[in-house]
Amino acid sequence: METLWDHRYAQRTQRMASSAIRELLKLTDKPDIISFAGGLPAPDVFPVDDFTAACERVLHEQGAQALQYGTTEGYLPLREMIARHTGRYGINITPDNVLITSGSQQALDLIGKVFINRGDRILVEEPTYLGALQAWNAYGAEYVTVPMDEDGMMTEALESALRSGPKFIYVLPNFQNPTGVTLSFERRIKLIELADRYGVPIIEDDPYGQLRYEGEHIKSVVTLDNEFRENGEAGYRGNVIYLSTFSKTLAPGLRLAWVVAPPEVIRKLVQAKQGADLHTSTFTQMVAYEVAHGGFLDRHIWLIRRVYGERRNLMLEAMDEFFPSEVTWTRPQGGLFLWGMMPERLNSAEVLERAIEQNVAFVPGAPFYALGGGGNTMRINFSYASPEKMLIGIERLGKVLHQMVAEK
Amino acid sequence: METLWDHRYAQRTQRMASSAIRELLKLTDKPDIISFAGGLPAPDVFPVDDFTAACERVLHEQGAQALQYGTTEGYLPLREMIARHTGRYGINITPDNVLITSGSQQALDLIGKVFINRGDRILVEEPTYLGALQAWNAYGAEYVTVPMDEDGMMTEALESALRSGPKFIYVLPNFQNPTGVTLSFERRIKLIELADRYGVPIIEDDPYGQLRYEGEHIKSVVTLDNEFRENGEAGYRGNVIYLSTFSKTLAPGLRLAWVVAPPEVIRKLVQAKQGADLHTSTFTQMVAYEVAHGGFLDRHIWLIRRVYGERRNLMLEAMDEFFPSEVTWTRPQGGLFLWGMMPERLNSAEVLERAIEQNVAFVPGAPFYALGGGGNTMRINFSYASPEKMLIGIERLGKVLHQMVAEK
Repeated sequence: METLWDHRYAQRTQRMASSAIRELLKLTDKPDIISFAGGLPAPDVFPVDDFTAACERVLHEQGAQALQYGTTEGYLPLREMIARHTGRYGINITPDNVLITSGSQQALDLIGKVFINRGDRILVEEPTYLGALQAWNAYGAEYVTVPMDEDGMMTEALESALRSGPKFIYVLPNFQNPTGVTLSFERRIKLIELADRYGVPIIEDDPYGQLRYEGEHIKSVVTLDNEFRENGEAGYRGNVIYLSTFSKTLAPGLRLAWVVAPPEVIRKLVQAKQGADLHTSTFTQMVAYEVAHGGFLDRHIWLIRRVYGERRNLMLEAMDEFFPSEVTWTRPQGGLFLWGMMPERLNSAEVLERAIEQNVAFVPGAPFYALGGGGNTMRINFSYASPEKMLIGIERLGKVLHQMVAEK
Repeated sequence: METLWDHRYAQRTQRMASSAIRELLKLTDKPDIISFAGGLPAPDVFPVDDFTAACERVLHEQGAQALQYGTTEGYLPLREMIARHTGRYGINITPDNVLITSGSQQALDLIGKVFINRGDRILVEEPTYLGALQAWNAYGAEYVTVPMDEDGMMTEALESALRSGPKFIYVLPNFQNPTGVTLSFERRIKLIELADRYGVPIIEDDPYGQLRYEGEHIKSVVTLDNEFRENGEAGYRGNVIYLSTFSKTLAPGLRLAWVVAPPEVIRKLVQAKQGADLHTSTFTQMVAYEVAHGGFLDRHIWLIRRVYGERRNLMLEAMDEFFPSEVTWTRPQGGLFLWGMMPERLNSAEVLERAIEQNVAFVPGAPFYALGGGGNTMRINFSYASPEKMLIGIERLGKVLHQMVAEK
């Protein structure tokens, strides 16, 4: 149907291609499919009873506030809780450093709105998180990329990338989406040194940092950046904006995440958020606070680690058993994803088509490459499928891969 | 504290001045103040018990879905309910015409992202809703305005405004924010005819349409636009995008609103929303559906009408009693606001300063003028303050006005 809106789209609308992931998620919605495509937490670990009790308490005791308009910055006790939590990692901040966002996706969008002029270069890992590219494409971002290996962003390639004058560096140091790879301690230090030398600020996106199943915790970039101060004082240096979320530790359906940034940046983000959605749901913020405070979250994360860690182990063992030797994959120490690499002659979109016929799905890796490439890569989620389904799914996918390796 | 972010803000950030309303809301947060500033619904009509029961039912019966990621388009039963509801007004649509947004503010932001190129002119009423200006300033919108009188946008001035080639027309026909004025039937028809002749589409923002306290319901612009089809068939012509919200009928703290638009426009808005916040909280959508379906909303709106209608009457009587004769105001047939006009020599920002000293507050009208002006106007909310407080507040404000009229 033709309408008067048809020829009135803005220029930027042409760049906002529908996310390959979202379209795929629709395709993989068939009831029989075993999907390793989404980044979905396991619903069996959602603390449903705790949520029920929290809703009742919040509505009973503070109903009028919970259902009313709130401040753009977010619910103060939640911001205080986040400030205290951040303090555990040696970052001294106040609630003035914290903005609650409607999921981390909104944080990425607001950052784009506040910082990106058309044509600005953003330095990203190759591959990087697709959602960031989606958010920033709308503001006309260009990209400069740094390749990754099993220790994360290859910092030996960072300096030449920095010479191109990027507006900021975007990095997911822990169990990266999509690769599952973790940036090593040595490279974190190198990243901070180089960013400092070139005067380029950093955005650290850390949705999975608490979901480590083996190995030692590595201090976050924002913490190390602060230690890098010559006087060694506890504080917050402000050159790293830190993003995290309740989506993987509590529940993604709440759409609750946060930004830690210098107060002046928070003020600009607040202005942008006023125009974007006024504020995040007061009710979900109060419910999340009610569920999360008083130590519940630590206990709950312990449970999630156990469940996801077992699933990761099972998936790695199943892949060893069923995948052809021509395919390799990462062995993440945490998070939700691993990354498969096929021989160059294979194309993961074609593999996916065949896989869907066999009722199993994953995400092709190409959309995670800001500058193209990655046609032979795949992102595989290990948090969502139950162990039984996971085993069947990996066996099916292995068969498809064996066939395609033999055919080509 | 200086950080590396300081000189990296995007051009558009300079235009995103912090909303005067939001800053004022902070100022008027003092416990003793009687505030007519916010657009806050009365908390005493929030259906807290219904929400409590709905939360329990949703979490008990569909907890895993409610806490999980959802689709960008929104929760299907909610979209179906909205499509059915819209059908009552002679608009035949399907859920493919409906997008759930995180409040109407997000709908305005997504419309800006999808349609506005830097320098595009948007045709708005003078004054118009400040939140739309905030959302669209970030995309570089310019404005062309049409003045208003007690029958809304003066359509005799519309044609010359249309000749400037605006991208779209933005209109709030019912109990407009900020003036409380309603666009008359004749002018709605005139608006549709002229928009049609000039080929310019319309955005109808209708948060308050159901909150009428006196007079007859006037068909919405989207309905009349459809009747304007030559063949007179029931359907949806697609040239009017219609926005509404649960913020005034259920609760603003949920941040739930919706867009009705042609499917192709919805697809573009969905792409923009993927990058903006992925999707609106699954949980709040399911809870709102659970509360609203099955006729509850009709009963509840009946109650809201009664309460707000009485408060409007009380406020109008109190203003007749306590305000100086040099001040005039609108007599809205519905909604949340009325509009005060002082002699030109008075400035409402100065009045507000004095009013706050007397512990009473309102919103100065100037920020609602896209092209400046309106320094002697004020927006006054009548839904939030209890009758007792309202009376005291209007008496205080009347005293301030009497003094200032006498002084100047």
